[in-house]
Amino acid sequence: MKITGEMLIGGAAVRGQLAELQAIDPASGSSLGPCFGGGGAAEVERACALAAAAFDRYRETTLEQRAHFLERIAEGLVDLGPALIERAQAESGLPKARLEGERGRTVGQLRLFASVVRDGRWLDVTIDRALPDRVPGRRPDLRLRNVALGPVAVFGASNFPLAFSVAGGDTASALAAGCPVVVKAHPGHLGTSELVGRVIQAAVQACGLPEGVFSLLIGEGNAIGQALVSHPAIQAVGFTGSRAGGLALCRIAAARPQPIPVFAEMSSINPVFLLPGALATAPEALAQAWVDSLVLGVGQFCTNPGLVLGSAGPAFDRFKAAATTALGAKDAAVMLTPGIHSAYQSGVQRLQGVAGVRELARGTSAADDRPGAAQPALFSTTAHTVLTRPELEQEVFGPAGVLVDCEDIAQMRTIAEHLEGQLTATLHLTDADHAEARQLLPVLERKAGRILVNGFPTGVEVAHAMVHGGPFPATSDGRSTSVGALAIQRFLRPVCYQDLPDALLPGALREGNPLRVPRLIDGKREGG
Amino acid sequence: MKITGEMLIGGAAVRGQLAELQAIDPASGSSLGPCFGGGGAAEVERACALAAAAFDRYRETTLEQRAHFLERIAEGLVDLGPALIERAQAESGLPKARLEGERGRTVGQLRLFASVVRDGRWLDVTIDRALPDRVPGRRPDLRLRNVALGPVAVFGASNFPLAFSVAGGDTASALAAGCPVVVKAHPGHLGTSELVGRVIQAAVQACGLPEGVFSLLIGEGNAIGQALVSHPAIQAVGFTGSRAGGLALCRIAAARPQPIPVFAEMSSINPVFLLPGALATAPEALAQAWVDSLVLGVGQFCTNPGLVLGSAGPAFDRFKAAATTALGAKDAAVMLTPGIHSAYQSGVQRLQGVAGVRELARGTSAADDRPGAAQPALFSTTAHTVLTRPELEQEVFGPAGVLVDCEDIAQMRTIAEHLEGQLTATLHLTDADHAEARQLLPVLERKAGRILVNGFPTGVEVAHAMVHGGPFPATSDGRSTSVGALAIQRFLRPVCYQDLPDALLPGALREGNPLRVPRLIDGKREGG
Repeated sequence: MKITGEMLIGGAAVRGQLAELQAIDPASGSSLGPCFGGGGAAEVERACALAAAAFDRYRETTLEQRAHFLERIAEGLVDLGPALIERAQAESGLPKARLEGERGRTVGQLRLFASVVRDGRWLDVTIDRALPDRVPGRRPDLRLRNVALGPVAVFGASNFPLAFSVAGGDTASALAAGCPVVVKAHPGHLGTSELVGRVIQAAVQACGLPEGVFSLLIGEGNAIGQALVSHPAIQAVGFTGSRAGGLALCRIAAARPQPIPVFAEMSSINPVFLLPGALATAPEALAQAWVDSLVLGVGQFCTNPGLVLGSAGPAFDRFKAAATTALGAKDAAVMLTPGIHSAYQSGVQRLQGVAGVRELARGTSAADDRPGAAQPALFSTTAHTVLTRPELEQEVFGPAGVLVDCEDIAQMRTIAEHLEGQLTATLHLTDADHAEARQLLPVLERKAGRILVNGFPTGVEVAHAMVHGGPFPATSDGRSTSVGALAIQRFLRPVCYQDLPDALLPGALREGNPLRVPRLIDGKREGG
Repeated sequence: MKITGEMLIGGAAVRGQLAELQAIDPASGSSLGPCFGGGGAAEVERACALAAAAFDRYRETTLEQRAHFLERIAEGLVDLGPALIERAQAESGLPKARLEGERGRTVGQLRLFASVVRDGRWLDVTIDRALPDRVPGRRPDLRLRNVALGPVAVFGASNFPLAFSVAGGDTASALAAGCPVVVKAHPGHLGTSELVGRVIQAAVQACGLPEGVFSLLIGEGNAIGQALVSHPAIQAVGFTGSRAGGLALCRIAAARPQPIPVFAEMSSINPVFLLPGALATAPEALAQAWVDSLVLGVGQFCTNPGLVLGSAGPAFDRFKAAATTALGAKDAAVMLTPGIHSAYQSGVQRLQGVAGVRELARGTSAADDRPGAAQPALFSTTAHTVLTRPELEQEVFGPAGVLVDCEDIAQMRTIAEHLEGQLTATLHLTDADHAEARQLLPVLERKAGRILVNGFPTGVEVAHAMVHGGPFPATSDGRSTSVGALAIQRFLRPVCYQDLPDALLPGALREGNPLRVPRLIDGKREGG
């Protein structure tokens, strides 16, 4: 498949005339061909009009049709073969194995949502049958199902050019819910975006769906994204990126004549609590495992564990020493984009400038001294500093970690209470630590979307029980998740049908249950 | 039970010192004793601090404890006997039978949520067991449950002094979810609010719950409500009232350092579509039934059917003539508050002033010429006027209706597309109208939370399948409902527990299922 530099608007490929954009190799800073044409308001209008026109038909496709469409996209991604991986490598600087794994994850997400769609539980079919003889008055026949919200705007994320981008989790869950999707491509991987976009475009056509089910827009700066979120046809927004970017989209969405929900995943420092038993058992091994997680993917995960809390003392000192050695041995590596690299440099300088924060180690630049390469960084500080200096709560996106000396569990709990919302919180513990863990857990439940024991938060399973979300500012809406089966819920709303003749009811609600979906009837689950 | 004019803050009764507020009999405009003391920021702080302190313990009460607490409140309301109804009558001007019905509804809501809590489905327990031997890596054990959002601010509504007020739907669903509640009393029924508040306060004590589970605040103007929504402890807001009031709360909530969700039910004109077959069958009876619904409760329902669309012609002319006669025979009646009455008068004048709108009838003032009494009003206009004059889309809260001449079903569909979000949309049809109905239904699904056939939207069943919500501006969040079992979902968020030892898991997630709640295990429903 050839990369042409065009936008994909419904069934067409359209060359943008407003700007010329270039894909960049972040390692060298050099340009990658071809030149991309950036669009603007006219292309937003065209994509959104097509999405609106496609909506009523697409949302009423059968469960099987919708599931098949998702599987077809998954197959198309696999069929792209090495070309997709090579282009993503060139644009993102991420290693081949990581991108192959990410493709597997992306394909797995699409297939998970295909199974979720087929299962039909997401429809929440609920039926309260009429009670004609009720006193003082008849109860009508009430039937509820979920319907799709409408066309969704998805913003590709820089750090997962496949799994959180054009055919990533937001797109998969929105398409699964019955929402057409208009993607704004991330400028960090324009060629990858086009390749994946063409796979979706081809799947739309192959499945006989209305062309407006999918479009891919490219544009310079923020204007095209602002126009997209402002467009009246758009009914929800999916975004993974910076706090500033997410909050800007929230403001635009709230200022519309009809405000719409924004699901923005923004920032998290993912605290790790080392409880005394676990710390005493094997501090060196724990330190090595943590450093490995911290620098994984050059620290460019939303779930990067950037803050480690331990009780000051000999065991934590051993942890610190081992972490210092381990991180000092980690090579610098190229970050996703020059902009991300420069933000990382500023973040490290910010930490260096905080009174009470000490630099313990930097990674080596021996293996990679290219300008886009980031050197890992390790700092230590005290609980008092964390509680008084807000800089320590701000995410430094990249391989930088801070070790925090606490006096005791009570002070750890104080810090946990002080922290903003997080995607994850991690406990390292042994059986001897359960009493301490019980002091922390209620706070962590209020602060985080996922709580882990004796692991690290990088590596987010795509599963039914996953939550990749969390209270503000981890996300703009802590009541939802962007990974896992539950993500379909973001793009749904309930509608109640009262006393409709069976012939006018949607299939899912008809008395004979022709779709064979799970149903709750008069408050009781039908069948299994 | 004596009304003292005090606020209820946790277990205490506190006399506000910032203002003196008086309950008013809307029929006469005269004051009702006693004098109420209005509070401010200090009382907000105290109530919110108590709510925050109560939260972790309250949200982990057993399902049975929580259900029993809700039932205890229900019993307490019944035990108040005629005193509650008499006070509510005096403060709201609503008739005795209506308030008795509303008490029944309020008690029914509390009992429904007790059954919802016991059932445990709301926890959404989802378990993906570990796959230790998976290649390339082990899948961890993942367990998801819903947890309560945190303390909730509830604003009492004027038009349901029992069912949407201190112990109304928002309070019941928030308490069911495990959220402490701080209610801001509606100034239109201060005494009723205190009576009900004291019932909840007593139930908190009788059930041995932390006192901060419930507080009731009173204040002059908007300041106390603004302070409440701004307080960092508050994690969600429930509101039923005007569009201006709801939007103001949304702005305050979005401007917080940590934004929070606002569930505001604001305004709806609840269109009624008369399809040709139904209109031809019995236009006079249909007109009478519609007028009865329009003036029910002096038109003070969120679901009041204010806009009727029919195809111009002899049958619709007969409907109009019958509606004119029926409405002309309806008596004026006292509205809930002087402010609501004056807003109704302005709304009717606004309609009278629109070019292309004709007044067909006014109700009679013979039976009730008191200053707070509203005369029903009936207008007619054309589809063209509706499509060009935004005044016709604005809710006139009260017994005013507009009949709209449409050319055909296509024009009805155009109007449906043109309308803002609605709580309800109604179709009157016969078997001969199914083709026309199929043209309208996809649009109505996008516009409304509930679609009815051959009925009227006033009268909202409390049931599992009910949706009392809808796209903006019907509500600020069309993904939820304020009536029915699903309302508990507003106040929940999912948390995933990864690899927690069984002893540290919340009861709902333990391997042995000690709470006997329904579970989804590896994507399959366990048991029934």
